[in-house]
Amino acid sequence: MAPIRLGMIGGGNDAFIGGVHRIASRIDGRFQLVAGALSSTAEKSKASGAALGLAEDRCYGDFTEMAKREARLKDGVEAVAIVTPNHVHYPAAREFLKRGIHVICDKPLTSSLADAKKLVAAAEKSDALFVLTHNYTGYPMIRQAREMVRQGDIGKIRVVQVEYPQDWLTDAVEADGSKQAEWRTDPERSGAGGCVGDIGTHAYNLARFVTGLQLESLAADLSTFVEGRRLDDNVHVMLRFDGGARGMLWSSQVAPGNENALKLRVYGEKGGLEWAQEDPNYLWFTPFGEPKRLLTRNGAGATAGNQSASRIPGGHPEGYLEGFANIYNEAADLIVAARDGNKPDHLLPTVQDGLEGVAFIDACVRSSKRDAAWVKL
Amino acid sequence: MAPIRLGMIGGGNDAFIGGVHRIASRIDGRFQLVAGALSSTAEKSKASGAALGLAEDRCYGDFTEMAKREARLKDGVEAVAIVTPNHVHYPAAREFLKRGIHVICDKPLTSSLADAKKLVAAAEKSDALFVLTHNYTGYPMIRQAREMVRQGDIGKIRVVQVEYPQDWLTDAVEADGSKQAEWRTDPERSGAGGCVGDIGTHAYNLARFVTGLQLESLAADLSTFVEGRRLDDNVHVMLRFDGGARGMLWSSQVAPGNENALKLRVYGEKGGLEWAQEDPNYLWFTPFGEPKRLLTRNGAGATAGNQSASRIPGGHPEGYLEGFANIYNEAADLIVAARDGNKPDHLLPTVQDGLEGVAFIDACVRSSKRDAAWVKL
Amino acid sequence: MAPIRLGMIGGGNDAFIGGVHRIASRIDGRFQLVAGALSSTAEKSKASGAALGLAEDRCYGDFTEMAKREARLKDGVEAVAIVTPNHVHYPAAREFLKRGIHVICDKPLTSSLADAKKLVAAAEKSDALFVLTHNYTGYPMIRQAREMVRQGDIGKIRVVQVEYPQDWLTDAVEADGSKQAEWRTDPERSGAGGCVGDIGTHAYNLARFVTGLQLESLAADLSTFVEGRRLDDNVHVMLRFDGGARGMLWSSQVAPGNENALKLRVYGEKGGLEWAQEDPNYLWFTPFGEPKRLLTRNGAGATAGNQSASRIPGGHPEGYLEGFANIYNEAADLIVAARDGNKPDHLLPTVQDGLEGVAFIDACVRSSKRDAAWVKL
Amino acid sequence: MAPIRLGMIGGGNDAFIGGVHRIASRIDGRFQLVAGALSSTAEKSKASGAALGLAEDRCYGDFTEMAKREARLKDGVEAVAIVTPNHVHYPAAREFLKRGIHVICDKPLTSSLADAKKLVAAAEKSDALFVLTHNYTGYPMIRQAREMVRQGDIGKIRVVQVEYPQDWLTDAVEADGSKQAEWRTDPERSGAGGCVGDIGTHAYNLARFVTGLQLESLAADLSTFVEGRRLDDNVHVMLRFDGGARGMLWSSQVAPGNENALKLRVYGEKGGLEWAQEDPNYLWFTPFGEPKRLLTRNGAGATAGNQSASRIPGGHPEGYLEGFANIYNEAADLIVAARDGNKPDHLLPTVQDGLEGVAFIDACVRSSKRDAAWVKL
Repeated sequence: MAPIRLGMIGGGNDAFIGGVHRIASRIDGRFQLVAGALSSTAEKSKASGAALGLAEDRCYGDFTEMAKREARLKDGVEAVAIVTPNHVHYPAAREFLKRGIHVICDKPLTSSLADAKKLVAAAEKSDALFVLTHNYTGYPMIRQAREMVRQGDIGKIRVVQVEYPQDWLTDAVEADGSKQAEWRTDPERSGAGGCVGDIGTHAYNLARFVTGLQLESLAADLSTFVEGRRLDDNVHVMLRFDGGARGMLWSSQVAPGNENALKLRVYGEKGGLEWAQEDPNYLWFTPFGEPKRLLTRNGAGATAGNQSASRIPGGHPEGYLEGFANIYNEAADLIVAARDGNKPDHLLPTVQDGLEGVAFIDACVRSSKRDAAWVKL
Repeated sequence: MAPIRLGMIGGGNDAFIGGVHRIASRIDGRFQLVAGALSSTAEKSKASGAALGLAEDRCYGDFTEMAKREARLKDGVEAVAIVTPNHVHYPAAREFLKRGIHVICDKPLTSSLADAKKLVAAAEKSDALFVLTHNYTGYPMIRQAREMVRQGDIGKIRVVQVEYPQDWLTDAVEADGSKQAEWRTDPERSGAGGCVGDIGTHAYNLARFVTGLQLESLAADLSTFVEGRRLDDNVHVMLRFDGGARGMLWSSQVAPGNENALKLRVYGEKGGLEWAQEDPNYLWFTPFGEPKRLLTRNGAGATAGNQSASRIPGGHPEGYLEGFANIYNEAADLIVAARDGNKPDHLLPTVQDGLEGVAFIDACVRSSKRDAAWVKL
Repeated sequence: MAPIRLGMIGGGNDAFIGGVHRIASRIDGRFQLVAGALSSTAEKSKASGAALGLAEDRCYGDFTEMAKREARLKDGVEAVAIVTPNHVHYPAAREFLKRGIHVICDKPLTSSLADAKKLVAAAEKSDALFVLTHNYTGYPMIRQAREMVRQGDIGKIRVVQVEYPQDWLTDAVEADGSKQAEWRTDPERSGAGGCVGDIGTHAYNLARFVTGLQLESLAADLSTFVEGRRLDDNVHVMLRFDGGARGMLWSSQVAPGNENALKLRVYGEKGGLEWAQEDPNYLWFTPFGEPKRLLTRNGAGATAGNQSASRIPGGHPEGYLEGFANIYNEAADLIVAARDGNKPDHLLPTVQDGLEGVAFIDACVRSSKRDAAWVKL
Repeated sequence: MAPIRLGMIGGGNDAFIGGVHRIASRIDGRFQLVAGALSSTAEKSKASGAALGLAEDRCYGDFTEMAKREARLKDGVEAVAIVTPNHVHYPAAREFLKRGIHVICDKPLTSSLADAKKLVAAAEKSDALFVLTHNYTGYPMIRQAREMVRQGDIGKIRVVQVEYPQDWLTDAVEADGSKQAEWRTDPERSGAGGCVGDIGTHAYNLARFVTGLQLESLAADLSTFVEGRRLDDNVHVMLRFDGGARGMLWSSQVAPGNENALKLRVYGEKGGLEWAQEDPNYLWFTPFGEPKRLLTRNGAGATAGNQSASRIPGGHPEGYLEGFANIYNEAADLIVAARDGNKPDHLLPTVQDGLEGVAFIDACVRSSKRDAAWVKL
């Protein structure tokens, strides 16, 4: 079967995440990058595109122009990956959705709650798919954790502890020329949340995906430790879920010794589950009163979802890129199904999940401004 | 030098903590148990005492009687260990302090803030020492962590994450005959805090000991998950410290897979420190921008405090009992010094630390009742 | 730049390793699979090829036929991946090498020492490249380990401990229809070594790659624990290296609890290095007399080789497939350079390394037959 | 019950192991040190004894004098701990055994095989007990491992991997005034084995204790890496057990990054067990085909032997000293039973185990001299 024709919006400079999306789209061989509005000028876009093997006339300086022209081409893009700073997600996605071109969009959904709602409306009006790359949900052990929760292995959930500490913003690198840091600490491009938007939202989404619990309210204490920084760089949140479970979320970008230490722990009436992104091929499971068990990717005791999200046998570690590729691979399934008008069930993060994520960011910012008062979601 | 004559209040039944104190007092050979009010009746006390090799006439059914008689004996106890449920700490300590007998008391200091204040007054009036067994402060790597913070190895502290999850109260074992669970879930004996008093206070004290930071205010969300339980069994707290550091404290007794998973993480402008009680011979240190280092008990890079709190070379693990014994060993130093009227500097938890701990519990309970409103300390 | 046209020999059935090579070849987008002799009949090959998107006329039932025809095509394959059982490596490689088509071949080089020597001769006579996929050498932390050894960070090497235990052959699965097990335990297809050929050779190659040491002699005790098995399933070897270093190699396929627990430890006069394949993003480094350091992929203290073998920032784990892809990516560099007649330096395993590996297997088998007598290499 | 009156031979200077024995003897309060030939002169012995609270007339400069006098005292020592360099074990033990005084002796049994045999004869002739402090056998998880093997949890054993690396002799510290290093590298005091005698024998004994397997033959390659050192500092051994199991033993004192990294792994037809001394409260158990389980000291799934060797609940780590104290505690049981002429079953290492250990050292030395030829035991 011919690969799906993919375009990319953003990702033209040495942006980390553009390269990640490209690798993820290639791992299972189901996409081919054929066009892009990789940068904000046609010239830069062509330069970036040439390095990626794109035809010159498929390199655009503007996503609207790209959407218009590609929509008319016989072999135009079937899907686009949007990997720009947050504030561009909505306007870019809108242009492609309204032309029936599928959108695979980086998180958070948008830089404002207003934009998020407009994007939901745009996605609902469109026949095209919208997939949000909360890629951590693609890890095999996370799929297993979700399945175990659903099948009752840990019983009714009581406590959810989730955290995502990093250390790369310990110093004011945004003032030293780090492009990655610049836009992430700029409210114009990131939105009102800094750390909470960049990684807090990942932690929230992961907890939500695994537990299935709906957040009822939160109390957030956002801090900015680095002088001159314009957005939060440390996030403390207390969580109350529908049904009575309680939790905590911590994310930080100023915690030396942490690279990408996303960690989820879920405790129920009958057992506990623990997972750490930096060692993603393991899932700790304790049935209460029994010894801890170390479940592995595609190993003994693997659930169906763990197996189907794995490419190779246990003990040969898969990582972040394979987890990300699972999102792309499953998006490919949906795109292929859509050709025949089918909409199969799936686990991919949707535009609604994206709206929830932006609402979470918004609630954290509002709560923090009110001295960590409880805010309902 | 002859060992210090020690008495014990409580610890007569199969109470976990009484045995711990006895072992801790023996490890360095500086105490000898010679008397006790081990149980609430003379008969039971004599039975328990006989098993411990105590003379029958030194086994009392009442701590007041014991205090009176021992104070008159030529070779009466020089110090007592109080290892009863919380509500007995104050009345028992008072009797010995007022007779100039040193007190080594289990935590939390008392079961109420009022008692705590009275005990502070009693201790201040007495010439005798008062030592509180927040024993985790006796671990060599905790001593090293404290020293490293003081000497600036991690710079000004920004974030403090401390947690103490257990799982032994996941079910309602207090209703099934567990004596350990019974009194810990009984407000009459424990005070207003359940999990927060039993182990939350350990977590708080540990963070305080290592960082030296004073807590400015807290917002606490206490939960009771097990039906019929009368006190909290899960504790979520957001922390604000003097000077601007922020933190989180989580303690739980309903988190399956956790035995005694006390863990402290401290992040400053220049580095981070991480320690876990279940693997206490290690301390992770990351100078920001450099690789993580695994510091070990009495190993390469050990500080003076790490070395002096260690008995054997690195790689031969010391544990909980040795940490506890360090409290006893240093208490012995103070008692010996006191014979000559000396009061050397020391690191042992004082009655003031105990008051702070009870104030912490009290603040958590008050905050939680007000829907996790901020409460100043 | 257009991707390199790749063919594949073997990998048509559900063979684990064929799929791995295909993913590895796609990750960096520098190869395109265009032809294959995927199975031993044209019919099966076409079926497999169709699933992979190959044109029907590029699917062959015979590698010689494929070599002949592809060599004549204007857009014939530039390189082939040989992923068959061991005994096919030599005859297949020969056909492509003699037609100037580059060969990327799975390990071990061949099923016999005689074949290995013939393949070395064939490769030396050819202008085409020959790359052996000892893929573990592609891991970023292994690259760093090698560089650290070379730059003297651990001083002159004294002790090398390498091991590769698995557990999948604990039972006689070769008798229960496991194709993977069948050929690996069949001397006709695997050669005289079972476990020693399948994974012992990986362990040996890894030690060789990192230390740079030449093996002087070995004493091997091969065992077959599973009844009816025709080849060894457990391997114990003592190693003596040129220059005086000593070592041990253990590989096993009957060690329950081990998935792919390849582990290398190297100790020198000035320090030690430790690495485990199942947690490949870490490398432990101890400068003697200092605390252990945890080096990470693309993290603080990463060497040039670590960085250039990494695709994404530290803390987002890369795994086995990325390590494998590094072999393909560097092979692509060499193939591109070869177009202009250039032969740049590289780190890829060569046909000579392959010969060494087969000589190692042969020496182990001979030593073991002589009751673990020392055999020179 | 009054504590057992204990004497000590050696341990007078700052010797590591003397202090360990004293702490171990105190932890459970069943021994009281009352006499000693702590040093080789009466003067030094009295100085050391004074610091330990011994009466001056119970401090001897000579163990024979001590044995004679104490045997005559009404309250003379009931047992002695021998903690001297190896070559003194036999002559000292002989003097006490022949006077019916129980002996608790450090390992290895003696510095020569001839002495070992004489000591066995002496012990057999005596009514007194002889206990060898292979203290690692006192760890609770080691007791559990042994029980699990016996009850068939891992099936018939196939492979045994045991190792004990250290790094403290990486440099020639014996030439720099380290007393600990001096006698351990001196054949006159240590015997013919250096590393193999000091720690290799621990590794061997541990494997033997857990597996119950009898060693049939071995092939050993001993090395001396540090210039001028008179005994081996690195030990490689291949093992063949009665019944067909195979194994490897590695011990080293020149492996930077290893403090006391004793590790045992045992694999059988049905499962595997893994234990590491530096994290002694854990035991990994994999029933083949199921997830790995992390068994803990006194935790879920603890066997009777694990529980009875534990003092405190799981999650509060016990360590080396508690493991050592288990040896003393069980020796106390035997001594008390012996008063009534009883000889209960026990797990303590005997003089026969000691002879086996010395025979192991002797066989390693002989094998190594013959270029690692197989030597029968």
